[in-house]
Amino acid sequence: MNNRLYFASDYLEGAHPKIINRLVETNLMHTVGYGDDPYTVSAKERIRKACVCPDAEVQFLVGGTQTNATVIDAVLKLYQGVIAADYGHIAVHEAGAIEYTGHKVLPLKSELGKIKAEDVRKYLEDFYQDPSYTHMVNPGMVYISQPTEYGTLYTKEELTALSEVCREYKIPLYVDGARLAYALASVENDVTLADLARLTDVFYIGGTKCGALLGEAVVVPNPELISHFFTIIKQHGALLAKGRVLGIQFDELFRDNLYMHIGKTAVSYAGEIKSALQKKGYPLYFDSPTNQVFFILEKSKVESLLERVEYSNFEQYDDTHVVARYCTSWATTREDVDALLEVIANFR
Amino acid sequence: MNNRLYFASDYLEGAHPKIINRLVETNLMHTVGYGDDPYTVSAKERIRKACVCPDAEVQFLVGGTQTNATVIDAVLKLYQGVIAADYGHIAVHEAGAIEYTGHKVLPLKSELGKIKAEDVRKYLEDFYQDPSYTHMVNPGMVYISQPTEYGTLYTKEELTALSEVCREYKIPLYVDGARLAYALASVENDVTLADLARLTDVFYIGGTKCGALLGEAVVVPNPELISHFFTIIKQHGALLAKGRVLGIQFDELFRDNLYMHIGKTAVSYAGEIKSALQKKGYPLYFDSPTNQVFFILEKSKVESLLERVEYSNFEQYDDTHVVARYCTSWATTREDVDALLEVIANFR
Amino acid sequence: MNNRLYFASDYLEGAHPKIINRLVETNLMHTVGYGDDPYTVSAKERIRKACVCPDAEVQFLVGGTQTNATVIDAVLKLYQGVIAADYGHIAVHEAGAIEYTGHKVLPLKSELGKIKAEDVRKYLEDFYQDPSYTHMVNPGMVYISQPTEYGTLYTKEELTALSEVCREYKIPLYVDGARLAYALASVENDVTLADLARLTDVFYIGGTKCGALLGEAVVVPNPELISHFFTIIKQHGALLAKGRVLGIQFDELFRDNLYMHIGKTAVSYAGEIKSALQKKGYPLYFDSPTNQVFFILEKSKVESLLERVEYSNFEQYDDTHVVARYCTSWATTREDVDALLEVIANFR
Amino acid sequence: MNNRLYFASDYLEGAHPKIINRLVETNLMHTVGYGDDPYTVSAKERIRKACVCPDAEVQFLVGGTQTNATVIDAVLKLYQGVIAADYGHIAVHEAGAIEYTGHKVLPLKSELGKIKAEDVRKYLEDFYQDPSYTHMVNPGMVYISQPTEYGTLYTKEELTALSEVCREYKIPLYVDGARLAYALASVENDVTLADLARLTDVFYIGGTKCGALLGEAVVVPNPELISHFFTIIKQHGALLAKGRVLGIQFDELFRDNLYMHIGKTAVSYAGEIKSALQKKGYPLYFDSPTNQVFFILEKSKVESLLERVEYSNFEQYDDTHVVARYCTSWATTREDVDALLEVIANFR
Repeated sequence: MNNRLYFASDYLEGAHPKIINRLVETNLMHTVGYGDDPYTVSAKERIRKACVCPDAEVQFLVGGTQTNATVIDAVLKLYQGVIAADYGHIAVHEAGAIEYTGHKVLPLKSELGKIKAEDVRKYLEDFYQDPSYTHMVNPGMVYISQPTEYGTLYTKEELTALSEVCREYKIPLYVDGARLAYALASVENDVTLADLARLTDVFYIGGTKCGALLGEAVVVPNPELISHFFTIIKQHGALLAKGRVLGIQFDELFRDNLYMHIGKTAVSYAGEIKSALQKKGYPLYFDSPTNQVFFILEKSKVESLLERVEYSNFEQYDDTHVVARYCTSWATTREDVDALLEVIANFR
Repeated sequence: MNNRLYFASDYLEGAHPKIINRLVETNLMHTVGYGDDPYTVSAKERIRKACVCPDAEVQFLVGGTQTNATVIDAVLKLYQGVIAADYGHIAVHEAGAIEYTGHKVLPLKSELGKIKAEDVRKYLEDFYQDPSYTHMVNPGMVYISQPTEYGTLYTKEELTALSEVCREYKIPLYVDGARLAYALASVENDVTLADLARLTDVFYIGGTKCGALLGEAVVVPNPELISHFFTIIKQHGALLAKGRVLGIQFDELFRDNLYMHIGKTAVSYAGEIKSALQKKGYPLYFDSPTNQVFFILEKSKVESLLERVEYSNFEQYDDTHVVARYCTSWATTREDVDALLEVIANFR
Repeated sequence: MNNRLYFASDYLEGAHPKIINRLVETNLMHTVGYGDDPYTVSAKERIRKACVCPDAEVQFLVGGTQTNATVIDAVLKLYQGVIAADYGHIAVHEAGAIEYTGHKVLPLKSELGKIKAEDVRKYLEDFYQDPSYTHMVNPGMVYISQPTEYGTLYTKEELTALSEVCREYKIPLYVDGARLAYALASVENDVTLADLARLTDVFYIGGTKCGALLGEAVVVPNPELISHFFTIIKQHGALLAKGRVLGIQFDELFRDNLYMHIGKTAVSYAGEIKSALQKKGYPLYFDSPTNQVFFILEKSKVESLLERVEYSNFEQYDDTHVVARYCTSWATTREDVDALLEVIANFR
Repeated sequence: MNNRLYFASDYLEGAHPKIINRLVETNLMHTVGYGDDPYTVSAKERIRKACVCPDAEVQFLVGGTQTNATVIDAVLKLYQGVIAADYGHIAVHEAGAIEYTGHKVLPLKSELGKIKAEDVRKYLEDFYQDPSYTHMVNPGMVYISQPTEYGTLYTKEELTALSEVCREYKIPLYVDGARLAYALASVENDVTLADLARLTDVFYIGGTKCGALLGEAVVVPNPELISHFFTIIKQHGALLAKGRVLGIQFDELFRDNLYMHIGKTAVSYAGEIKSALQKKGYPLYFDSPTNQVFFILEKSKVESLLERVEYSNFEQYDDTHVVARYCTSWATTREDVDALLEVIANFR
């Protein structure tokens, strides 16, 4: 559109070329609606295979907030709330979509987006020791994101610990994988799709930020967790008549393992950007291992940087600095990165 | 996929070639998210022009049920319900999505999907004459669809009458235009987009069934009707991060008046199919003026017809007959229709 | 307050003298809150005995609409609705309190307030035969009232039939007993509290209209039906801090079998009123067997009757007549009835 | 019931003798239902007078959680949440009743139950400066309690400051007065009912904890704030058929200024108990000015104290201590206090 650089987020372009091609190829094929078409059926099967979870229920929804609200409402009982990181997406940035379903988000202190199994355990222990706990919102689910809003990762050990406390208390563990491809692409990651299917009770594989035009794939390893999921999706306005639009995209994302490597260049570019920033003397806010780069920027420079680069001022750092964020994606090109590196090198 | 014929609905294919081409062309352009991109801005402007309503708020949502639930919840006050045809989509086929928002659907008797202004008036008069009306759901909106689920059309006169009673009682009138392109394409139609903008308080222009991959355009002629609509859309899980996916499609649908004639062949083919059925001795259930053909079929023939044609058994007619429905669409081809005409001619 | 006669409803006075005395006696006793006091514990035990259902969970709520909304929401699953008579209280007169919980009331045709087991069966059969039933509200409960809003009674045979179809389809059967004392007091009644406990899944024993200041006792024969009911009651704003206010009243209502005969004079007086009306030439709308008398009254006489008697104009009969209702209660006195009989005898 | 002492809360007895007498006196009077009876009409008028607010709408509801949920839902717009102290009753102890209405409770840091006007201002300023605020829950109301859950009081100056920031941002200010009588009875209090009516947009005058069997009186100084409040109350299951049960009680509470002094002995006794604790060497947690006494107790003594006194272990203090709470009420007698003082004097 213009010669600004776009590093504000990972949903700034259309779809991965393979996906857009597939949409073109299949465009005039006739199929039945509501996800019973062969593309969707195939996509579900590929995802079950990638998760090594042959019995999983897989459903395709449209966007992240919608998916979170629908899944959380479907899993929680009437009197329950969901434990989440105090700065988690559902706690802060979904316009109250969870509360709109009637359920409270129970915030737990977090560090760089992550919550600890021991804190969950403490919360649950304290809850059941409170003599008035029947007057309080019953904790019925634990929500985490992988990677988190800060791009950080739960290790397999950490996820196992969370899984254990959840299973001890019979509370489903739910993973929001809006950016899951960038976790899978990180060299620091040791959590596979099969681990997610084994250690959690429900999770979603993000499409919107990971190469699709739109779409998120919900995986329920043990389908008994959610009865009548299809009707619930419809009730929540999350059912596409033309379900194949999602099916085709995920079928492509899971054909030839595309999803496993679609985030690789993004993560690698993020690494280059981090180095350049540090070299130029911009302190990182912390060393995020996926496709997001957080650094500390003088407020006085915000304006002039925005002229060149569409990026995100993530949060206040102190009175004179902000935490700025660059975000790469599957669509980021060598040229974009080189141009950004030049901006960084020449910035003052 | 195979050589069956597909006349079951109007969401069985991808998008109109012009739309899919535009998605391809724009695919790697960078834009900001959430509908602030130039494609979406342009699409909104084109729709305002087509509706001759320069101040209208236009918002793009993903699907019909979602749109209905979000709009109705946004417009109704806490204590209100929505009057709708007793067989209307929101009353029967949306899995309780409206009730899920906390509001009752107040069913009104209908004929071939249409409700009458005089019946709405009677309902409102009776309501306010009931001494216990403060113990009842306050009617806060009237919902109709154009065309209706039966493909029938409100005339400009009928719509004007509905508009008048709504305005007299200060109740917003909302039109579900899931298949609006097929109304606009019907020779029997005398209601324009400008009429809708003038006579109603909110309506949506259907994309999913009218040539888009997905998407519905909500038009609010007087934006004061819904405050903070953007946040409400987000709260209802109806906001696309990659808003341009909708913007691009509607920008194309309203470029060169595509939306005005995209339904023309479908309506014309429906006419041919009606003639062929009548000629062959299959009574029409009634003469539907848009892209749906309802006819009466012996139950004993259902199986063998389904082997050849994907169609819809709409409802029970009597003990030995069903009301069957063929549905054409923008994607229906001359070849498809000829093949169907042959099926009809040879059917026994 | 004045010398008008009050026959408009059965909630026009305070509490049965035994109850008010008991409230006075216990007034300054100290007890713990939220229903753990000894009065409430005793009341629950007496109700369990009266229902011959030693394992039942009993909870006391405040009013009828609140009880219906809380119980129905507690029992239904997210995607379900409740089948009810089309003129049932929850369908018409509770200001959408059920829809407010997110669930649709699925209206079933009724006769004098009653629905038929065969119609429920037909509804369920048709529902599951509809190919698009997963797009519709799943029927998850059947709601009836005993006596109905028309004062009519389900016989044990009819209740058994309803119970059977509900159990066949694994759908809980719920009975609203707002006026249950008047059913139990009717010579035409053959349904006992034990029958209710045996044939239904949850029911409530009305207090407000049956001698208490306020309060309704919910009985759940198999407590597994509703998990965490206490917290749900709190969440629905239906938990009294001073729970004993309800416990004391129901303890008295179920001491010495008061509840079994508290409605007897009301039903007997209603019989006298019916005879007087018929003798005077006022046709009964139908012969209601409990404490309500429905008769047909010329509209022209409404005004002058209202001057003497507070009664209820129940519904339109025809252009020149209404269905009028007299309602007796536990508080109706011989003097009141004699005065009303005189009004009737002299009315013109 | 036994010779334990009851200082656990202020809802452990029935009603003030004047109220119970009035209920007895009026018991068999006939009145119409739903709050149109003369007692309720009179009670409303007395409350308007006491608040020096002749145009206020007054409605009687049953309990605190119900009142909070109904009022907050009635006032907030669909997309809004309510700012409250992070340890406020609605944030912690109402089983998610507010979230159940679809609205988020937005927690603000508090000190001894109180929030500061400057923190509210900061919250609102930050909110509107956040570039993504339209993706977040819009703050639509400020909720405080007077006295707070800690028995502390807002001064007139503090309340004025809160009122000013709310009016600047056009956000209603709501005061939960569950224990308002104990605020009005405190020598430290300088906020009158007229101040509440002048400085806030809606508040409730607590009955349940302040001498009534049950009931809370909602006051809306400018009735335009809440349209159709009656229907909303019904919809929320908060409408009593026998409305006079509340009307009679509040009519008595506001006859002869009973409400203004009903809390006086309770506050005075609390003072005596504080002195006795301090004398005996039990540190107060802080010096609460109303009817609650918070002190620090060794965990090892909890058991033996509970044998003698029903009191409340309010929260954890440290590993070996709890914050214990004694609560007095209108029903606390000289004898009760003397007995407690003896327990304190002899405790070890």
